[in-house]
Amino acid sequence: METLSLGQYDLIFNAFSFGFATLAAATLFFWLGIGQVKQEYKLALIVTGLVTFIAAYHYFRIGQSWVDAYTLVDGVHVPTEKVFNSAYRYVDWLLTVPLLLVELILVMSLSRSETVSRATSLGLAALLMVALGYPGEVSDSLGVRWVFGQLSMVPFLWIIYQLYKGLGDAIESQPESARGLVRLARNVTVGSWCFYPVVYFAGAIGLEGATATVIVEVGYTIADIIAKAGFGVIIFLIALRKSEDPQNDKTLTVPAGEGPKDKNTKTVPAE
Amino acid sequence: METLSLGQYDLIFNAFSFGFATLAAATLFFWLGIGQVKQEYKLALIVTGLVTFIAAYHYFRIGQSWVDAYTLVDGVHVPTEKVFNSAYRYVDWLLTVPLLLVELILVMSLSRSETVSRATSLGLAALLMVALGYPGEVSDSLGVRWVFGQLSMVPFLWIIYQLYKGLGDAIESQPESARGLVRLARNVTVGSWCFYPVVYFAGAIGLEGATATVIVEVGYTIADIIAKAGFGVIIFLIALRKSEDPQNDKTLTVPAGEGPKDKNTKTVPAE
Repeated sequence: METLSLGQYDLIFNAFSFGFATLAAATLFFWLGIGQVKQEYKLALIVTGLVTFIAAYHYFRIGQSWVDAYTLVDGVHVPTEKVFNSAYRYVDWLLTVPLLLVELILVMSLSRSETVSRATSLGLAALLMVALGYPGEVSDSLGVRWVFGQLSMVPFLWIIYQLYKGLGDAIESQPESARGLVRLARNVTVGSWCFYPVVYFAGAIGLEGATATVIVEVGYTIADIIAKAGFGVIIFLIALRKSEDPQNDKTLTVPAGEGPKDKNTKTVPAE
Repeated sequence: METLSLGQYDLIFNAFSFGFATLAAATLFFWLGIGQVKQEYKLALIVTGLVTFIAAYHYFRIGQSWVDAYTLVDGVHVPTEKVFNSAYRYVDWLLTVPLLLVELILVMSLSRSETVSRATSLGLAALLMVALGYPGEVSDSLGVRWVFGQLSMVPFLWIIYQLYKGLGDAIESQPESARGLVRLARNVTVGSWCFYPVVYFAGAIGLEGATATVIVEVGYTIADIIAKAGFGVIIFLIALRKSEDPQNDKTLTVPAGEGPKDKNTKTVPAE
């Protein structure tokens, strides 16, 4: 750890606080919005809120750890003995990154068997991707960082392949009103995730010092907000759009008069 | 208590934080998911969320106790006067382990009399199992640890017998769509519970030192996450599957026209 100027220290602390506020507010938004969507999309919103809830908890902890890790001496922030706990990020990703893929699968409302198989394979690949990154992140050796970073890229590339190729047909058969948003959700996932290896390999090419710390911490925070809260808003809009879409409501084909009652019981069978 | 390296101390602390985050998120998932299942399975989800809620509380406290129990001296963590409070685990298990068996019984939707008798007998056996383990866990004598460990195995083996033999018929008569998951829930219970005596007797054979502390604390944490959050997800899936299963819905055999209205009133008798 290196000495930070007042401005550098504050910028990072404020990024963590911003991360907490955004992710906590996003959680409440997704969960309060559950009543706005049809029964079959509620589970997607529940999981979307879980992701931001878990991330908000970790940003709160990261902020506390940051405060403990530095002390003010002669107008600069010098590291204390309590090392900043960057493991919080990996613990968070271990839980949230698989769930992010699960929420995308859930909002697509595929068949049960396809939902289970795709959620399982994508979730496990995401778990492997995060787990392989960690040994490199904590290692002092640039070589180790490179090796684990590259190993971690294997499941990452597989996930990208699956999102474009494996899920391609399923995305193109989404209701027209939601198709563009589902494509956007897929692209935001891949786009925001690409930022993580950039920050990771910034460490692997030996970028060091206070400026590197600012880039890494603020960079990861922005990426987390986009990948979790921003992505979640798209999932919410997809669920809302599909809930409103008459094409998506099979019960509208029953004769008028019978329709409304039938519709009510068919779309909310469990209540 | 022994001196721990930075890595050992952090690994255990991060395991506790991971435990809290997972169990808190699981609680919210189960409770938010109550609206996804039929009336007769809602109580099972309420209890499933209670278990993870109680465990999340204890992991939060355990994490605090861990921080208080060590202080950094010359780059290693040395024990303070405040001894790490491992009683939190037993207080937690006293509440959650009987409830874990109750949630399995509840999601099986047996007759009322069978639900009451099985939940009572299994719950009391679980209480006895945990209570008998505690005197051995806190004793400094290996002999005392052995005696109470073995006494605790008696209700444990009775519970296993009940889950396979006593509940065997009831499991095999579950709706086909959920039967495999109910078997899985039973097996996950027994499998994850088997881990606790292994950790317990690791202490009884005199395994000591910093490595033993890491194995015990991280081991119990993983076992708790699987036995409570992982098991709870299976209970949730069983409730969901049984709620969706038309075979499980007697009202679908009534003549068309009468169906939807009849179905609606029959499945929500309590509202």
